[in-house]
Amino acid sequence: MLTGELGEEGLLNEIRHLFADHGDEVIVGIGDDAAVVDARDGRRQALTTDILIEGIHFHSGWQSATELGYKALAVNVSDLAAMGARPKYALVSLGIPPDSEASLALGICRGIRLCADRFSVKVIGGDTAASPVGIVLNIAIVGELEHEPVARSGASAGDRIVVTGLLGEAAAGLRLLRQGSEEGFPGLVRAFRSPEARVEAGIAAGAAGASAMIDISDGIATDLRHICAESGVGARLNLATLPISTELSAASSEHGWEKDELALSGGEDYELLMTFPADKAGTARGEIKSRGRVNATDIGEITDTPGEITVIDRDGGEKPLEIVGYQHFSNDGQD
Amino acid sequence: MLTGELGEEGLLNEIRHLFADHGDEVIVGIGDDAAVVDARDGRRQALTTDILIEGIHFHSGWQSATELGYKALAVNVSDLAAMGARPKYALVSLGIPPDSEASLALGICRGIRLCADRFSVKVIGGDTAASPVGIVLNIAIVGELEHEPVARSGASAGDRIVVTGLLGEAAAGLRLLRQGSEEGFPGLVRAFRSPEARVEAGIAAGAAGASAMIDISDGIATDLRHICAESGVGARLNLATLPISTELSAASSEHGWEKDELALSGGEDYELLMTFPADKAGTARGEIKSRGRVNATDIGEITDTPGEITVIDRDGGEKPLEIVGYQHFSNDGQD
Repeated sequence: MLTGELGEEGLLNEIRHLFADHGDEVIVGIGDDAAVVDARDGRRQALTTDILIEGIHFHSGWQSATELGYKALAVNVSDLAAMGARPKYALVSLGIPPDSEASLALGICRGIRLCADRFSVKVIGGDTAASPVGIVLNIAIVGELEHEPVARSGASAGDRIVVTGLLGEAAAGLRLLRQGSEEGFPGLVRAFRSPEARVEAGIAAGAAGASAMIDISDGIATDLRHICAESGVGARLNLATLPISTELSAASSEHGWEKDELALSGGEDYELLMTFPADKAGTARGEIKSRGRVNATDIGEITDTPGEITVIDRDGGEKPLEIVGYQHFSNDGQD
Repeated sequence: MLTGELGEEGLLNEIRHLFADHGDEVIVGIGDDAAVVDARDGRRQALTTDILIEGIHFHSGWQSATELGYKALAVNVSDLAAMGARPKYALVSLGIPPDSEASLALGICRGIRLCADRFSVKVIGGDTAASPVGIVLNIAIVGELEHEPVARSGASAGDRIVVTGLLGEAAAGLRLLRQGSEEGFPGLVRAFRSPEARVEAGIAAGAAGASAMIDISDGIATDLRHICAESGVGARLNLATLPISTELSAASSEHGWEKDELALSGGEDYELLMTFPADKAGTARGEIKSRGRVNATDIGEITDTPGEITVIDRDGGEKPLEIVGYQHFSNDGQD
């Protein structure tokens, strides 16, 4: 069987199985946004890593070297945020073609530094290598938890589904960049190039009793499926409540896009998708807004039908969610 | 300027400068085998990462998938060993061509698991990605220190230079594999494919008062230069004392190789190169042998001539060491 036929889910299942028997010190293992281990002083550490490969995760024309570096660290910070952790230390591996301009490698590093300063991360080590095949950028990051980690597996029927910020922005920005028609939509392009990692929102959500949390890297349709699969529940989304910006609406009108589809399937928003017990959701949204300085929108509820996700559309009808987000090993790009 | 002209040293200097201003919690930052941070409970953590790219660090015919996975983790464990740290947790990023056999990815993961079990490492997370261009394998690892970290920068004039195990084995094994003439030299091929990481030897060396330590990844000539540069010292090596196996001697005779050159320049041995104050070196070598179950050989001394490394050859003459080991961004392979 080829790796592409096994698929990312199949490969990850094999890997999870292979490394499943960790001991008590490992509180969250493979399969969540970040691992969580007991650091033995009562504090817990969260650890995660992300690899970016040129031609798969990005193309050189989509962003500057500095933006690429910034984003590479930001997506790792976002994974920690999705556990409710605060980032501390990062290790950076950079594979770079020897015949590239040195300003490329240095620009990437400057972008990493900008993001590190933004989130108080210390870059303490790394590795460099010649790459025969474009840029390869891997970041590993370690953070600290101030409360219990928020895994993907804790959602229960009746919980409210809450999302930070806006949906579909980054996917729309990428579509515009691919078409070369990004003029006039700076917010969408910025959302793709320089995503915000929701560290304070994630910590606030954990403190406010979030039952499950994930960051939206592959699109809400895919990422909500992850929560449902890990928690053994279903979900019902209310399309009318999806947080969609006027800029995304305008771009969708101009280009004939379905804005709801973009909001549901669009990857790389790096917003947080959370669930809360119904009696905590209102207070939690307030905490996220005040501490995390970002809107938190109630977009639906968790149901007791495992794996079944439905949407209530704008005329009140309910139907299965058929949109899926980014599928690794089978698409040729992040859209 | 091109990245290849800037070179690995130039690039690393820029990166060290960019990330130099870390705070008190970072005890060892960029530029050593691993970073060391204060984990706040009196324990210290060591962290490091290594990236392997197909066509640069390895070729598919050189080893099995399982051996590749084993070695990828072992070289990270070795970096921790060179600080005197014990490995605890690893994060694995695997970029893999979608059109590869799934047995390739799974074989790599099984090799990682074998090495993880060998060194009591828990693989707690990672990332997978489609790669357009062969295998990319990044591992990040976290370990614990039981004593003060042993950096590259602590060597003083008069210190003895000590090395574990045998030198030149892996480089000879790679030469044989490239020539397709590996029959009859299983020890050399095994040294290349399945290097031993010297965890217990590193811990024993730290406890026995090592003043500097590095693992031999780029060849002793290059790695001793790193110690000399960081410590502001020079070194004098005694060729007659280099630990060279009978198998390496036999292969060198058969193929017309200079065995001393292989021992000095050969990369990927992953033995530990250490310095000790002269009055501690004898006891330290005994401790390394008993706790680390590996020979530790005295091969020379640290001198007070910064950056100057000389060798005393077998007829007693002293001359500058002109051999250099592997230079990233300028060679096309590890030999």
